[in-house]
Amino acid sequence: MLKFEIKDLSTETRARTGRLQTERGTVDTPIFMPVGTLGTVKALSPEELTACGAQIILGNTYHLYLRPGCEVIDLFQGLHKFMHWDGPILTDSGGFQVFSLAKLSKISEQGYTFQSHVDGSRHTLTPEKSIEVQLSLDADIMMCLDQCIQYPASRAEAEAALELTTRWAKRCFDFWESNRRPQNNLFGIVQGGMFPDLRQRSAAQLTALDFPGFAIGGLSVGEPIDLMREMADFTLPLLPVEKPKYIMGVGTPEDLVELVAQGADMFDCVMPTRNARNGQLFTAQGTLNIANARFRKDTDPIEAGCICYTCRHYSRAYLRHLYKTRELLAYRLNTLHNIHYYLNLMADMRGAIARDEFVDFRSAFYRKRNISIDNDDR
Amino acid sequence: MLKFEIKDLSTETRARTGRLQTERGTVDTPIFMPVGTLGTVKALSPEELTACGAQIILGNTYHLYLRPGCEVIDLFQGLHKFMHWDGPILTDSGGFQVFSLAKLSKISEQGYTFQSHVDGSRHTLTPEKSIEVQLSLDADIMMCLDQCIQYPASRAEAEAALELTTRWAKRCFDFWESNRRPQNNLFGIVQGGMFPDLRQRSAAQLTALDFPGFAIGGLSVGEPIDLMREMADFTLPLLPVEKPKYIMGVGTPEDLVELVAQGADMFDCVMPTRNARNGQLFTAQGTLNIANARFRKDTDPIEAGCICYTCRHYSRAYLRHLYKTRELLAYRLNTLHNIHYYLNLMADMRGAIARDEFVDFRSAFYRKRNISIDNDDR
Repeated sequence: MLKFEIKDLSTETRARTGRLQTERGTVDTPIFMPVGTLGTVKALSPEELTACGAQIILGNTYHLYLRPGCEVIDLFQGLHKFMHWDGPILTDSGGFQVFSLAKLSKISEQGYTFQSHVDGSRHTLTPEKSIEVQLSLDADIMMCLDQCIQYPASRAEAEAALELTTRWAKRCFDFWESNRRPQNNLFGIVQGGMFPDLRQRSAAQLTALDFPGFAIGGLSVGEPIDLMREMADFTLPLLPVEKPKYIMGVGTPEDLVELVAQGADMFDCVMPTRNARNGQLFTAQGTLNIANARFRKDTDPIEAGCICYTCRHYSRAYLRHLYKTRELLAYRLNTLHNIHYYLNLMADMRGAIARDEFVDFRSAFYRKRNISIDNDDR
Repeated sequence: MLKFEIKDLSTETRARTGRLQTERGTVDTPIFMPVGTLGTVKALSPEELTACGAQIILGNTYHLYLRPGCEVIDLFQGLHKFMHWDGPILTDSGGFQVFSLAKLSKISEQGYTFQSHVDGSRHTLTPEKSIEVQLSLDADIMMCLDQCIQYPASRAEAEAALELTTRWAKRCFDFWESNRRPQNNLFGIVQGGMFPDLRQRSAAQLTALDFPGFAIGGLSVGEPIDLMREMADFTLPLLPVEKPKYIMGVGTPEDLVELVAQGADMFDCVMPTRNARNGQLFTAQGTLNIANARFRKDTDPIEAGCICYTCRHYSRAYLRHLYKTRELLAYRLNTLHNIHYYLNLMADMRGAIARDEFVDFRSAFYRKRNISIDNDDR
């Protein structure tokens, strides 16, 4: 059973630190969870993840349900042994990928029907089925099946989606109550689009159920950054203060700093891993694109002072060479640096909150970024 | 300056063990050298190579000359620091890649002219230029520029190529003598096609020069396996017994066992790395193709008892899943196993020679392979 203990509170913001105790280990919050879509955080080994400071990773139910399938995962009693990661794993419900990846997906009161994006096979994903698959994955934190909507969406669409999400959350909760093991926890997801009163209604309905934690879904679905942060800022205080609060699928380093200030505890995003594979590297001064010709003869590491494996041993010139020649090592070294950057940023924030210096930390964070070392993407 | 010390001699074969002392470390022979074409053994880190037992790796002069180019390598005083490998490196001359990869390549007494396969730029590769580039790479063992010919080749072609190779070897030797540093050693390459008397002539001409080691080139260029081994068997005894003997670009595990029996000391081949990326994995029982459906629910490691990182932590089912979903980790874990297999095979051979049990070792090696676990490719 999940235990969440709040450790430190920032006096000038809503930022807080905490400890999330799962059966497979303790997670210091606020935390970023690297995304391991298909049972691997792309290009990295579990040992490298640990060396980068990873305490919990994410798996995608939709992807793992299709490949390798529960029949295979069950032989390993879950995802952990299959992928050689013995720390906590959070799995999503599969709903977001059905919505964004699957073909011919249809939604009804019962759940989703869809065709696999891999082989066109037909599948049904109900709230109960989603939890069943997540139990098969033996996830430490499971997510309720919800209905995701695009931005912009009408009020009527957003309202219908949140009401369905609540009815599904109840079904997920019931299924979980009947089938749970001590290690499998379930989070509810607040929807409501960009309508504050709908977010409020969703939060009220969801928090009526005794979930061990809550997530805010339906952000970063195409809306402007300011609106995303505004919705998070409005919704976070509606969730019980004593439970972990997870913002799904967000975001940039700036997003993380702002949302931690608002009181969020958990994050996941493909940005550090996906962007690494596209040559975009994160530093305190901003991002740099390693393909840039200016790095051809640059003997410096990605970021001076960074203690990640990549920065300790390799130059920008070498990383550019690997990237330009499409060497497999490029994706790995880039990913390693970016994951280290994200996890180190979270650790720095935890330290600043513990010392009650979060506002100073945030000022320094933005100050450094004004010294841009690359204008490729800002 | 290279020192080569013979340690053990097999009484029933010409197999031998030795120690090759370079300025950057000692290499136990017979040895297999993983191929690091572009300044990286594809998918592996230097630390992983060391953990697999790698003592010396290979770099490709043609590739590194084109990308990143000497101008970049020079900033790092050579390839070692650039790629974070501080052990010995052997570089080829570039001739083989000009012959097999470059466009519009022409050969004359002076050297090769060719167009880059990357960007079509025009270049000249003379014997002197090849050594100059290899000195820029600061290779511990450099190779003379030679003329490679395809199989089958006429006697006239083979004769002309060997004579040109000898004239170029003299130019390489002279350039090396004038520009060498203590750490940069140069090997001569015996050519002569599939004509024993031409091999003999080439060996006589080359060994008249005081190279610290000798290679046999022009094997595995399309000829039948038996002919390749026959030519190696004929040529190896023509090289000075007290110097290291290197068979270039060979081969399968069976080839390595047979050529070690003939007295060869050094090998390189892309087979363990390239085949790994195509899903072919080496075991004592033969090869298996990890994409095969039979491995879908196979919870065993690639090879029972194998102590490589991959076999210690991952199942065939997981590796098949990674491979089928084209995950980057697949290439890395497969490569790691294959490189470990090759290097472990060499270590086992060294042990068997030291105990003067090489014939028994060879019998056991073939006996195990009769129990094929997969008929995919044999």
